[in-house]
Amino acid sequence: MPQGRLAVVGLGPGDAALMAPAARAELDRAQDIVGYTTYVRLAGPFAPGQIVHESDNRHELQRARAAFALAAQGRRVAVVSSGDPGVFAMAAAVLEVLDTTDDPGWRAVELAILPGISAAQAAAALAGAPLGHDFCVVSLSDNLKPWEVIERRLEAAAAADFVLALYNPVSLARPWQFDRALDLLRRHRAAATPVVLGRDVGRPGESLTVTSIGAMRAAAVDMRTVVIVGSSQTRTVARADGSSWVYTPRSYRDVPPGETG
Amino acid sequence: MPQGRLAVVGLGPGDAALMAPAARAELDRAQDIVGYTTYVRLAGPFAPGQIVHESDNRHELQRARAAFALAAQGRRVAVVSSGDPGVFAMAAAVLEVLDTTDDPGWRAVELAILPGISAAQAAAALAGAPLGHDFCVVSLSDNLKPWEVIERRLEAAAAADFVLALYNPVSLARPWQFDRALDLLRRHRAAATPVVLGRDVGRPGESLTVTSIGAMRAAAVDMRTVVIVGSSQTRTVARADGSSWVYTPRSYRDVPPGETG
Repeated sequence: MPQGRLAVVGLGPGDAALMAPAARAELDRAQDIVGYTTYVRLAGPFAPGQIVHESDNRHELQRARAAFALAAQGRRVAVVSSGDPGVFAMAAAVLEVLDTTDDPGWRAVELAILPGISAAQAAAALAGAPLGHDFCVVSLSDNLKPWEVIERRLEAAAAADFVLALYNPVSLARPWQFDRALDLLRRHRAAATPVVLGRDVGRPGESLTVTSIGAMRAAAVDMRTVVIVGSSQTRTVARADGSSWVYTPRSYRDVPPGETG
Repeated sequence: MPQGRLAVVGLGPGDAALMAPAARAELDRAQDIVGYTTYVRLAGPFAPGQIVHESDNRHELQRARAAFALAAQGRRVAVVSSGDPGVFAMAAAVLEVLDTTDDPGWRAVELAILPGISAAQAAAALAGAPLGHDFCVVSLSDNLKPWEVIERRLEAAAAADFVLALYNPVSLARPWQFDRALDLLRRHRAAATPVVLGRDVGRPGESLTVTSIGAMRAAAVDMRTVVIVGSSQTRTVARADGSSWVYTPRSYRDVPPGETG
């Protein structure tokens, strides 16, 4: 039996032109493709001989186990993940399964992680360079960590004047959380601080909104939006079409953190 | 005269298999390629008709101005940047030049940022999934911000139990700074906390080292190393070859931040 291979493949934001050739090659040579339905469809179409295993988005560990079970039979398996599989995505779930298995066959699988461009990077590129200086990436997702941890991290990042990229900003279980996050951030930032809302960037129907921490409303974001909140240094530049570029300069000037609001 | 175009192109970590097809296409159709010598060589070879403008790594603003001057003449210009141009790279410099120019010709240039996979993502993928949960990205570069800002950010991120990705960890001007950063981080992390050192990942001679915050020494890093310091949750998993995978689980368990050392 050949040694099996399990590759966790980053599709990037969705546009095939932003997927790394290494990811495309891995998908093309996979015998089995495992993933959430939406992402599998972004990754395809596949050849008739390739077997596609689609599943619900919530079942990351089940999906990772299914992938190991296939690879342990000697198959070449690709687990698809949107964006970068290493950022709030499938790579950690696959490692978690490997960490907790007793099956020597699963441990013998050749494992590879293929990185991709994450949603915040695609939104940032469309907006200019809001992540051009120190930044923090925080998921507000409700089901995997206590809200107190999230709030503590937002507080720390805001107080130290980091730019913030927020994933999964709203959730059904905690409709109040994004408002709470906004209240917290407003205590540390001037009202004019630029905010970028990127929704489905790199996919059909993408939208980009530049607003400010003072003007923005929680209703403007949903689960498919990535939110980038500027630091005290983040600036806008007018574009010819009347919209704005947003960037955070490489150098840190003038305003000491803590005196920015 | 045709409208000029200035595209800031992310090469990714270096391996052509990790560069987005959109970036490759932009390089192929550029009339002028502007960049730091090392990155221009990673991006090439170029066709005989393409004009290559190489410069020193320190002159980002000069390079951005040269690119605008060319594009304002109606030329298609690609400014090359390693990794993601939006992360401690050329996109912010280009926006800064646009922000401060009085030249209407420069403002009329069509501007595009093409994202790429950044060095920390390439190192993380090789290591497993150390950035699988909330993380902060900090440059320790010495010439663009006060050390107090860096120290304050490290302190905040460490205290809130973020994973940390550190770019430009050492510098000639501040040989003491990485030791200071290590001392600070050790006050917030158990000695066994995993640390990943990725050097030239995605380039010839790449190396990946998995160590711990207790065991690591400043001498193990240089300017081409990206350093990823785990949170209280970050774990290792043995690999078949005796080395370790490193990952940060998607869920947050047990140890409250602040009680992790």
